[in-house]
Amino acid sequence: MTYALYIGNKRYSTWSMRPWVLLKALDIPFTEKLHMFKPGLRQPEFLQFSPTGKVPCLHHDDTSIVVWDSLAICEYVAESHPAAWPADAAARAFARSAAAEMHSSFDAIRDECSMNVALRIELGTPGEALQGDLDRLTALFKEGLKRFKGPFLAGETFTVADAMYAPIASRCKTFGIELDGAAGEYMQRLFDHPAVQAWVQEGVAENEIEPYHEEDCRRGRKVLEDFTKQ
Amino acid sequence: MTYALYIGNKRYSTWSMRPWVLLKALDIPFTEKLHMFKPGLRQPEFLQFSPTGKVPCLHHDDTSIVVWDSLAICEYVAESHPAAWPADAAARAFARSAAAEMHSSFDAIRDECSMNVALRIELGTPGEALQGDLDRLTALFKEGLKRFKGPFLAGETFTVADAMYAPIASRCKTFGIELDGAAGEYMQRLFDHPAVQAWVQEGVAENEIEPYHEEDCRRGRKVLEDFTKQ
Repeated sequence: MTYALYIGNKRYSTWSMRPWVLLKALDIPFTEKLHMFKPGLRQPEFLQFSPTGKVPCLHHDDTSIVVWDSLAICEYVAESHPAAWPADAAARAFARSAAAEMHSSFDAIRDECSMNVALRIELGTPGEALQGDLDRLTALFKEGLKRFKGPFLAGETFTVADAMYAPIASRCKTFGIELDGAAGEYMQRLFDHPAVQAWVQEGVAENEIEPYHEEDCRRGRKVLEDFTKQ
Repeated sequence: MTYALYIGNKRYSTWSMRPWVLLKALDIPFTEKLHMFKPGLRQPEFLQFSPTGKVPCLHHDDTSIVVWDSLAICEYVAESHPAAWPADAAARAFARSAAAEMHSSFDAIRDECSMNVALRIELGTPGEALQGDLDRLTALFKEGLKRFKGPFLAGETFTVADAMYAPIASRCKTFGIELDGAAGEYMQRLFDHPAVQAWVQEGVAENEIEPYHEEDCRRGRKVLEDFTKQ
């Protein structure tokens, strides 16, 4: 076993989810190093295995290489597993753009729709910023699916682009967001993917509840369903 | 000429600066497509050439491929120009982690120290969040320089990692921030790099002043010097 992937709670950690889902979807063996969040936003004890104190962080035992960002981990893994990106150059350029856009944008959906795989929450009518993000997601998904023929975002195979948007699929479920047409169908397909389902089910089965992340998702909104195991 | 790089004002646009500086530093020919910002945060007319309405955006005329994010552009260019990343696998993993960290983090320095290549501003004592970012930058730079022997962040050659941090070198100048020891020396070296200097000088020579970006940098703080050409 050469890869050790350090992650946070499956219930909350979108950044951890991305490379984890990629490795699972591509059937690449790795050791999961799950470290539950202590209460609060910062996790100083994570500095023991991650130079930023953040997850995910990949340790490659064969080379002693440490890779400490979700997208960098995906690129690092892709060097040894080229199937992580589409084989076609145009599809690969689209996938890289889409992955990078997720990596640095969509602030409103991140801010207002914090991931919590065990909850279903009444969102109400999205404000302008959130609606802007949802419109952009819809346009992006439709473009990728149309140009590269699906079923995945950049063609026939599950790639980094899909892994980067996997947390959005979970957020759409939690907050009852249905994107239009082919974009909505893609969100459902991504949510149903075995690698995504594996993450979600393990997240639902977690017993640890961390108040900061929990409140960041709930914010006094009506909880419609709570699948948390008791 | 195969690459067309769409960018915003050199005075303000950190994201545009990154791939521009990379292409210049690697001596890769491209056509610059400079579109000055209209007043305000959003630039809807940029949708004519960029699917997100944001810059930078690369159009590759040979392939009709459009790449719409700074880091994705760097990765796309690196496919044809491998010198964009370090040749050594460990240095490359470090460079990719550092580049991705810049791409998604350092919110405080972005928020409080908006780039403006023509100004020198009195910052005052950094608050906790900004100091945290400066401490992390210092640790990151020192680690890279020590492990890979410099003069650049991940070794002997200018790579994407350096391009990603080039705007930080400009911000340090504008706000009089001096990072400790080898990290501060690296910031000066990066600022003095011909590709970075070319961007900065062309930014100083711009006549267009955009109120939103200008105020985001000034915020009522004391302007010590203003190099704007009259």
